[in-house]
Amino acid sequence: MPATVAPNAVAAVSEARQWDRLMALAELGAITGADGAPGVNRQALTPLDAEARRLVLGWGTALGLTASVDVLGNLFLRHEGTEPGLAPVLSGSHMDSQPAGGRFDGIWGVIAALEAVQALREAGIATRRPIEVVAWTNEEGSRFAPGCMGSMAYAGYRPPETWDAVTDPEGIRFGDALATLLASEADLPRRGLGVLEGPAPHAYVEAHIEQGPILEEAGCDIGIVTGIQGSRWFLVELTGASAHAGTAPVSTRRDAVQDMVRAIGALNVLMEDPTDVLRFTVASIEVKPNSSNSVAETVKFTIDFRHPDAAVLRARGDAIEATIKGAVRNCAVSLTERFNAAPAVFAPEVTEAVARAATAQGLRAMHIPSGAFHDAQFLVPLCPTGMIFIPSRKGISHNPAEYSSPSQLAQGTRVLAQVLAELANS
Amino acid sequence: MPATVAPNAVAAVSEARQWDRLMALAELGAITGADGAPGVNRQALTPLDAEARRLVLGWGTALGLTASVDVLGNLFLRHEGTEPGLAPVLSGSHMDSQPAGGRFDGIWGVIAALEAVQALREAGIATRRPIEVVAWTNEEGSRFAPGCMGSMAYAGYRPPETWDAVTDPEGIRFGDALATLLASEADLPRRGLGVLEGPAPHAYVEAHIEQGPILEEAGCDIGIVTGIQGSRWFLVELTGASAHAGTAPVSTRRDAVQDMVRAIGALNVLMEDPTDVLRFTVASIEVKPNSSNSVAETVKFTIDFRHPDAAVLRARGDAIEATIKGAVRNCAVSLTERFNAAPAVFAPEVTEAVARAATAQGLRAMHIPSGAFHDAQFLVPLCPTGMIFIPSRKGISHNPAEYSSPSQLAQGTRVLAQVLAELANS
Repeated sequence: MPATVAPNAVAAVSEARQWDRLMALAELGAITGADGAPGVNRQALTPLDAEARRLVLGWGTALGLTASVDVLGNLFLRHEGTEPGLAPVLSGSHMDSQPAGGRFDGIWGVIAALEAVQALREAGIATRRPIEVVAWTNEEGSRFAPGCMGSMAYAGYRPPETWDAVTDPEGIRFGDALATLLASEADLPRRGLGVLEGPAPHAYVEAHIEQGPILEEAGCDIGIVTGIQGSRWFLVELTGASAHAGTAPVSTRRDAVQDMVRAIGALNVLMEDPTDVLRFTVASIEVKPNSSNSVAETVKFTIDFRHPDAAVLRARGDAIEATIKGAVRNCAVSLTERFNAAPAVFAPEVTEAVARAATAQGLRAMHIPSGAFHDAQFLVPLCPTGMIFIPSRKGISHNPAEYSSPSQLAQGTRVLAQVLAELANS
Repeated sequence: MPATVAPNAVAAVSEARQWDRLMALAELGAITGADGAPGVNRQALTPLDAEARRLVLGWGTALGLTASVDVLGNLFLRHEGTEPGLAPVLSGSHMDSQPAGGRFDGIWGVIAALEAVQALREAGIATRRPIEVVAWTNEEGSRFAPGCMGSMAYAGYRPPETWDAVTDPEGIRFGDALATLLASEADLPRRGLGVLEGPAPHAYVEAHIEQGPILEEAGCDIGIVTGIQGSRWFLVELTGASAHAGTAPVSTRRDAVQDMVRAIGALNVLMEDPTDVLRFTVASIEVKPNSSNSVAETVKFTIDFRHPDAAVLRARGDAIEATIKGAVRNCAVSLTERFNAAPAVFAPEVTEAVARAATAQGLRAMHIPSGAFHDAQFLVPLCPTGMIFIPSRKGISHNPAEYSSPSQLAQGTRVLAQVLAELANS
């Protein structure tokens, strides 16, 4: 690649166009958080999700990119290479949000890849390899658990039908919601599913907001992401017996709420970590019958447990079931592991390219691990993989107050453009 | 009243007819509980509730009773007295159920009053005073909190518009649901609301299943209810901040689920009672955003607290707010008292009549306090008031496994018939 190529592409990245696209997408599922913060609720496979995909499809095809979709709903926009037979460079993220999410988590990675490709094309720069912009299906896992279904299926980590019977809180099956989406996109060419039905990509680069405070506190523009901590998700079901809150003596009850309180108390002890590295979260609770004067018969609650060390993940995660069973008084306990992603380490081919681009562009960069999981971790076994972070104001994410400025977002996209140009010519 | 009157009426009570009516009503909202138990989910002001009211209305008007409804949806079926100007004797209960309720709670009291009146009429027995069968609106309080709205408004304890803005879990306002019901019953004469717009009743008698194990364990047929323990209901709202479960350090979180666990733990200590008389229940929890990987921003949970001693109710109930505020780490706490019913003591005119009837009929009776609250407690200030209990199998209620046998139900109705005949001639 001539030395002039990357600077031209980098200069063609439009801060305003990228911001306008993000704001247009933020209209789809717009919500208002505390203090009027403009958030987004656009969960996977909803009509709003389909509408957002149409918007991005329109921008991509207007640019001359070729759209396609696979059986999991992963959406691709292909910029052709001068040697179309070479394995493509993939770049993107996800378009679904949390129920009370922000305007940048996921969606920026898709728009950044589109903007980077547009910049390359507008600068008249051809690449040897194709570049494919990708939007992975259901990364968040908030409507249908677990997250990262699209990238897991693409990578062959789970068969594509694995989650068909998973239901959302309204009882809609994932398989049915996916079929509805695919039917609405029957005009798009269908492509084979990832490495099950095609070649591995040459490389994968995902741009994402940090979702933590480290870059902002360090005064850095760019995070060279070194890897992702591992995650284990569990669903706990406690079954007791309903009873009349006025007549049933407390001593004789099988109260699922009280056993949940005992279980969480014991789990807090199991998960204690003076170094504050371990992440243990109970954030979703469903009580039945959930009537104030009927003792709870069942409680379901979730556990989200993360750590960068595989040994800690294994030891404490495997102790969860015995901890709960030792803590409850008289409810039956059922534990299901819904998600298990080992810690991932990113490839030097990508981390070094990110570092070079940041340096060339005069940006302050630092190496940083990812606390959140991302689709990128499932690409690690397939090809050299990496991520680019930009700062999140006060580290806030999964919240309408999530914010990164137009110039911070453009800085990240300029680094991505240079990295994609380099990888697509390698 | 001649000595022959009551025996004739008592003999006319039909065990089979009463059971068939209860089973027909149990079809409306039929659900299946654990082990296939046939329960009912027919909550207040739902289309199923309206359908059940039509069924009862049909039976009552076929019998020659006069129907009317008041502004709160309380439904009346009037058996005329030989002296129509005298204050009526009221008897009934409620027709709404818990979301996972049984086939007898409430509805039996309405059907028993109807059966008792039918028996009097079929035995050709006239009464000096009118007898009105009543079905009170929303006793359970499970769809719209609190319970006993109909009887509270009837008694002038709260103005009728008090609960208009209360919403159910789907956001439907009580006022709107009530207006829909009343519109569907526009063919019924509208009557004034209780003692606000009419005279006080002469007496009120409510038949109800015990909902506890005492009568069964004592081998008794009839409970002569002495009074009702007091109840205080609260709604607790904890407000923290949502955050990403993978990135936000545990030490910096404002996690509403964790503060709920702390609050319930402290309340358990406040509510400790070695005598096992006190009833403390947390049975309804709502978490937002309720996504497994977003730290909980808000938790709402209910408190149901009951005790027969007004001093205990006052002291411990008033300590709830400070106990929660002392227990949480960093969430904002808001406490709302939604219901406050003082302990009630029933009138000797009624308890003695119940005792006499049970003795006359050769039934085993005992005096018993009520652990559950009932519409009856709001009638206490208006007129001599009392209740008749029959056994509940294993004490189970608010559960599809709730059961009383056809003959147990008929025994209760025979006692009610004799008591109503006596009171309506006094």
